Amino acid sequence: LVSKLPNVGTTIFTQMSQLALETGAINLSQGFPDFDGPQALREAVARHVMEGRNQYSPMTGLPSLRQQVAAKIARSYGVQRDADSEITITPGATEAIFCAVQALIRPGDEAIVLDPCYDSYEPSVELAGGRCVHVPLALPDFAVDWQRLADAITPRTRLIFLNSPHNPSGALLTCTDLDKLAELVRGRDIHVISDEVYEHLIYDGQRHASVLAHEELYQRAFVVSSFGKTYHVTGWKTGYVVAPPALTAELRKIHQYVNFCGVTPLQFALADFMAAHPEHVEELPAFYQAKRDLFCDLLTGSRFTFSRALGTYFQLADYSAIRPDLDDVAMAEWLTREHGVAAIPVSVFYQSAPKEMRLVRFCFAKREETLRQAAEKLSAV
Amino acid sequence: LVSKLPNVGTTIFTQMSQLALETGAINLSQGFPDFDGPQALREAVARHVMEGRNQYSPMTGLPSLRQQVAAKIARSYGVQRDADSEITITPGATEAIFCAVQALIRPGDEAIVLDPCYDSYEPSVELAGGRCVHVPLALPDFAVDWQRLADAITPRTRLIFLNSPHNPSGALLTCTDLDKLAELVRGRDIHVISDEVYEHLIYDGQRHASVLAHEELYQRAFVVSSFGKTYHVTGWKTGYVVAPPALTAELRKIHQYVNFCGVTPLQFALADFMAAHPEHVEELPAFYQAKRDLFCDLLTGSRFTFSRALGTYFQLADYSAIRPDLDDVAMAEWLTREHGVAAIPVSVFYQSAPKEMRLVRFCFAKREETLRQAAEKLSAV
Ligand SMILES: CSCCC(=O)C(=O)O
Ligand SMILES: CSCCC(=O)C(=O)O
Repeated sequence: LVSKLPNVGTTIFTQMSQLALETGAINLSQGFPDFDGPQALREAVARHVMEGRNQYSPMTGLPSLRQQVAAKIARSYGVQRDADSEITITPGATEAIFCAVQALIRPGDEAIVLDPCYDSYEPSVELAGGRCVHVPLALPDFAVDWQRLADAITPRTRLIFLNSPHNPSGALLTCTDLDKLAELVRGRDIHVISDEVYEHLIYDGQRHASVLAHEELYQRAFVVSSFGKTYHVTGWKTGYVVAPPALTAELRKIHQYVNFCGVTPLQFALADFMAAHPEHVEELPAFYQAKRDLFCDLLTGSRFTFSRALGTYFQLADYSAIRPDLDDVAMAEWLTREHGVAAIPVSVFYQSAPKEMRLVRFCFAKREETLRQAAEKLSAV
Repeated sequence: LVSKLPNVGTTIFTQMSQLALETGAINLSQGFPDFDGPQALREAVARHVMEGRNQYSPMTGLPSLRQQVAAKIARSYGVQRDADSEITITPGATEAIFCAVQALIRPGDEAIVLDPCYDSYEPSVELAGGRCVHVPLALPDFAVDWQRLADAITPRTRLIFLNSPHNPSGALLTCTDLDKLAELVRGRDIHVISDEVYEHLIYDGQRHASVLAHEELYQRAFVVSSFGKTYHVTGWKTGYVVAPPALTAELRKIHQYVNFCGVTPLQFALADFMAAHPEHVEELPAFYQAKRDLFCDLLTGSRFTFSRALGTYFQLADYSAIRPDLDDVAMAEWLTREHGVAAIPVSVFYQSAPKEMRLVRFCFAKREETLRQAAEKLSAV
């Protein structure tokens, strides 16, 4: 069997989590909390499983959950998105992205990704027969380089991926960025997949510039989010995608045969919890900002340098002052083996990373004691 | 946006379940139980959700669940399949089939499907750029027509789909069938996807001829099964796929970016339950045969004719003596609206069904009272 994805190995997230397990290191690599989802949410799952909500849900997702998503969108961004024709529940944001790509990309098409970017975008495009064109974000702030993006557009360009808040950097797109993008694609047959899984994890009083609230861009967009990130339950693999009705119809045709439907009792529980606890998402910025600040404050005396993440639950750190001789893959492994803290190298998010890059990513979705222990070890480096 | 799947609408399963809901008909259409999964299994989910098993599981599936699957395979078929290199947990059998197809099919390749067949096979092949060649099973027994199958093979053939026990007919492949297929594909670059989601639902003392136990065929096969069918929890969307290490490696590359991993607490619960209740699968034939026989016995006085399903939880019934003027789609709708029992037309499982076909499919995975009420209504037709 000749491989359809010859360049793909095991993801760095699996590799580093595995190494953390083997070495007993504190795992700040793969992005997931070491604390649990809300008790009321978990109790709701237990209740629905025991009360017999265990058979297929509708292919598009449970209507009550789609309505809760619509309500959350209205509260968060002041726009109405229709639960029936615009919102689809998926088994995770990754599947939503995959299905959106399959709906959009044909053999020979090009998709633009802004490096560093999440590792599922490119294989999804390749499996649809397309090709990714990589445009690096401008350092040190991971801002869009509009000239380079404009230059990358060709007549074959069908898709641009956005990701804000941005993994791994925590950078945010602004409303001005969305305006510029709208201008750039105006009159062209180019769609957008906006990966907004960290939409509610945003700090220092900033506001998330969602494509959901940018009417012009939204008309050509799939906007993807994740219950796993927002409710601290990454292992539930439940997400959603919002798109105008015509785009949603095409995505659902694909989703129908990739997976059919999401997990029923989890959807019931999420709908209950969202109805009862709309404040959950409003409390997330303060909740995670406290973690970011604790971690960063504790690292301030260390030899790592950084500017604080504006969003996501990831903090980048520059290690040039520590081991400039090591590339970041070697550094992540060295930190794990020699200093007991697992991290993610940033270069793996690039097609070709700048040679001088000396950045690793730490996940701060961790309990206070985990962050304290990790920071202590990192300060000793 | 030009559709990638222009011929695809909403699946018949969604349509008929919807119509049943609207009309208040007894729903014997879409395949799912109207009773619940085992209490101990559901309690295990509640326990794991409350005890905090809510973050990502490994991409390949929880090791303990893969080991339980290997143990079940060894007990059921007397063969050893390796939990680490040959078994992958997926969010449902549909996703397993989709990923296997993406691993195998390239633009221009052909896949052979035996009609009638499950509706996800063809779109999965089309999304990979391939084309399905349809070979009808021989009526009235839905047996493989070996000459037609041999004639359908071309130099472009890369894949043959098997499905036993067979949805919608309940027919079974025999060991002799597997031998014939092995001979047919010997020396050719043709793989097999064997959809065995009803592997444990098999009646009248028959034994399931699994591709897992056919060493020669297995070497070129992906064998797909479903916890949802086996444990009465279709809404959990959890399945698995077994394939030789080299094929598994390619499937996992795709699965890694289609979905990443299955739902963690469900996997823990299934592993617990399988370890504690190996007898569950052994009791399934008698459990479902009693339902089949109850339903068929009650229909014996009706004007439907049928031979009893040998496997699956579906019973076909010929309605030529009732409304020969109606095609089966119209008949399924008429039964739902006028007689309060929803069924699935069989022609939708075909590319082009025989004109004279007058078959509908009833799902008998229902409580005794449901089957009695439905049979009463159907006997009055
Ligand atoms: C699906 S595993 C990766 C989790 C994640 O989003 C990250 O660590 O970047
Ligand atoms: C995924 S909905 C279809 C269920 C099923 O397998 C059937 O009814 O044939």
